[in-house]
Amino acid sequence: MGGDYAPDATIEGAILAQKKLSSVDRIFLFGPHEIIEHALQKKKADPSSFTIIHSPQIIGMGERPIKAYTHKPESSISKGLKYLKTKQIDTFSSAGNSGATLVGAMYSVNNIQGVIRPSTLTCIPRENGGMNVMLDIGTNPDIKPDILYQFAILGSIYSQSVLNVKNPKVGLLNIGEEDEKGNLLCQSAFRLMKDSVDFNFYGNIESRDLFKNKADVIVCDGFTGNIVLKQIEAMYRMMVKRNLVDDYIQKFNYENYGGSPILGVNGSVVIGHGISNAKAIMNMILLSKNIFEVKLTNKIKKAMLKHT
Amino acid sequence: MGGDYAPDATIEGAILAQKKLSSVDRIFLFGPHEIIEHALQKKKADPSSFTIIHSPQIIGMGERPIKAYTHKPESSISKGLKYLKTKQIDTFSSAGNSGATLVGAMYSVNNIQGVIRPSTLTCIPRENGGMNVMLDIGTNPDIKPDILYQFAILGSIYSQSVLNVKNPKVGLLNIGEEDEKGNLLCQSAFRLMKDSVDFNFYGNIESRDLFKNKADVIVCDGFTGNIVLKQIEAMYRMMVKRNLVDDYIQKFNYENYGGSPILGVNGSVVIGHGISNAKAIMNMILLSKNIFEVKLTNKIKKAMLKHT
Repeated sequence: MGGDYAPDATIEGAILAQKKLSSVDRIFLFGPHEIIEHALQKKKADPSSFTIIHSPQIIGMGERPIKAYTHKPESSISKGLKYLKTKQIDTFSSAGNSGATLVGAMYSVNNIQGVIRPSTLTCIPRENGGMNVMLDIGTNPDIKPDILYQFAILGSIYSQSVLNVKNPKVGLLNIGEEDEKGNLLCQSAFRLMKDSVDFNFYGNIESRDLFKNKADVIVCDGFTGNIVLKQIEAMYRMMVKRNLVDDYIQKFNYENYGGSPILGVNGSVVIGHGISNAKAIMNMILLSKNIFEVKLTNKIKKAMLKHT
Repeated sequence: MGGDYAPDATIEGAILAQKKLSSVDRIFLFGPHEIIEHALQKKKADPSSFTIIHSPQIIGMGERPIKAYTHKPESSISKGLKYLKTKQIDTFSSAGNSGATLVGAMYSVNNIQGVIRPSTLTCIPRENGGMNVMLDIGTNPDIKPDILYQFAILGSIYSQSVLNVKNPKVGLLNIGEEDEKGNLLCQSAFRLMKDSVDFNFYGNIESRDLFKNKADVIVCDGFTGNIVLKQIEAMYRMMVKRNLVDDYIQKFNYENYGGSPILGVNGSVVIGHGISNAKAIMNMILLSKNIFEVKLTNKIKKAMLKHT
């Protein structure tokens, strides 16, 4: 039931994803059984080729995350994360209330030991090919330098594992390139990061270089990251509306990415965009599988062991 | 000598501006006398139609603002601001070291009484015509809610006086529209602003709405504003490079605006972009004249009297 176009877009996305998965993979659908079955039949899909887990409660997009998650144990988010925790499923993804998914992930599978704050991340297409990643994109609006330092580790592991970037360079999003620039957070973070052996620190990076390949991983507080992300979305929508789109600009379409993984929790969880259409849902499911297969969680666990 | 293309672009800009000004206006040029005279002659302009104030010292773009300003009293920035203070000129603008101009303005003409922190501002073209203004754009990377509150007043006066917007709506740049959203700074600022009678508070505004006409004045800390501004510049440059430009996108060309006024000091001062070409310099000069003519400084003084 998650997302603005559920259940139809969600179901259609699941059907599309199923076609791309191998026969040993199985998609579990969490939601009201009858609604799911009806939506599958409408799309001429065989309900028996999915595992439907009846989850009758629905968390609205505007509900308070903690309250919604704890008061609605029969919602798809609560039930799905329980299945993830008990390893009945390997990955969980939802385009529903993202705060509830985040809080639920932290309450159910918990943070990886040593991770101060889990983070969410986005991909930014580069002008000359490839992808940068940026984190945090909204989960942590107020943070301290040691958290930014951890984001650099989390982002580097993601860039290496999922995007196959060797020795990714980490840039600190800042308002100048010089070492001493920025607000107090960035100034302190820079000093922490500058001689790091835990990742390949590039230095400060300005927002004018977001689309370049100066840094593969761009770290910032979740307030700044969210502002940057929504401005990218605004730019993309403006370009589409004005018919100013080429192959590169088209890469900014969120539906190609499927969503944002939650980095730093003990399981593969992906948060989809609330406005997800079927293609976005499909990519969300495929991304969550990808993250599981590259053993992202284990890699983060190993890296964190070094720090605790 | 200010700006990457000085003295030629600067001089050419002054010549262009002179043609747009009335015969009672007079442009003072601050810099090494011989260089200025030579550059004017190269452009076939009559040196006697300008007032040249010999300022032999040069502040480099990379110099530390306070040190440069205080140690180089014979630089164009130091000397120009002295002329402004003693009312030998009515407005001052420079595309040179912006930190030095800012610090110099605060040291020479001083802050307007009651202004905690002067601010710099940018114009953002709207999709459906007109302009939003955003402040702060980098002068104040770390601020408190009461400073954001003052930015709302400063920005409103600018929007009214310079852009002729009646009763401008002030939006607080945030990562969600709901009242309680954001980082600690925004949450506190929202509470301060919500019942304000000093300006017309719209509420929170997200970066996806920067180009819309939801809010006429968008306030944020200087770190966030600088990130947003440079991302807009990156977008514009990307569009130009990819030949994806229409009349609206063309409005993002910085050279149309001339620079950023310093709001909250006792005089009309405009900071130009370091990469200013002749057209940008011309518009910088015309903007500084405009700000003087609409009595922006006096209006801010009056508004601040109410608050002290």
